[in-house]
Amino acid sequence: MKNLYTPPRPEPIDEFIEVLAGSGRTRVERIISRGQASPEGFWYDQDEHEFVAVLQGAARLRLQAPDEEVVLGPGDHLTIHAHRRHRVEWTSPDEPTIWLAVFYADASD
Amino acid sequence: MKNLYTPPRPEPIDEFIEVLAGSGRTRVERIISRGQASPEGFWYDQDEHEFVAVLQGAARLRLQAPDEEVVLGPGDHLTIHAHRRHRVEWTSPDEPTIWLAVFYADASD
Repeated sequence: MKNLYTPPRPEPIDEFIEVLAGSGRTRVERIISRGQASPEGFWYDQDEHEFVAVLQGAARLRLQAPDEEVVLGPGDHLTIHAHRRHRVEWTSPDEPTIWLAVFYADASD
Repeated sequence: MKNLYTPPRPEPIDEFIEVLAGSGRTRVERIISRGQASPEGFWYDQDEHEFVAVLQGAARLRLQAPDEEVVLGPGDHLTIHAHRRHRVEWTSPDEPTIWLAVFYADASD
């Protein structure tokens, strides 16, 4: 058994991504951000759908089509459909932001 | 956007299960227990793997093969492989226990 709030040792300075579970095109990840944001002009454009929740900290996402800005705090979650372009505009510089993300594909893919 | 800690309205008395995301054999669920446990002698025996985390509250699981008892508090998570029999022995009577569960199958299934 492991804990989502336990920091990895040694504590990483960069953004930290850990696959917790999954198989095939389903993947459960813990992501820990420390003030990181997506590079200027970078947009994620993923083949998989993504369910994402913030468990600790805070973050601001920007999404396209439709254009939307979303601020997430502990417990907030949303689903970003495959190929909906999005980027992380901001994460809290004051504490680690812990994300839980589940990537998955359509059954027919 | 929704929040994992926001209680459903009206607040259910029974155990509450809500599918938050998913497709095909991948399913993200929020489960809220209020002191419920599995019925005496009942064991879950699932075709899917299950990643499960407790986000709030506390719970005790019993698993077979090998026989194991696991006590979970906020942030604790484990993965229960398909057909590993398990039951919920206890959930906190003092506060709602909020689970986040991700069910998924092997890529070849």
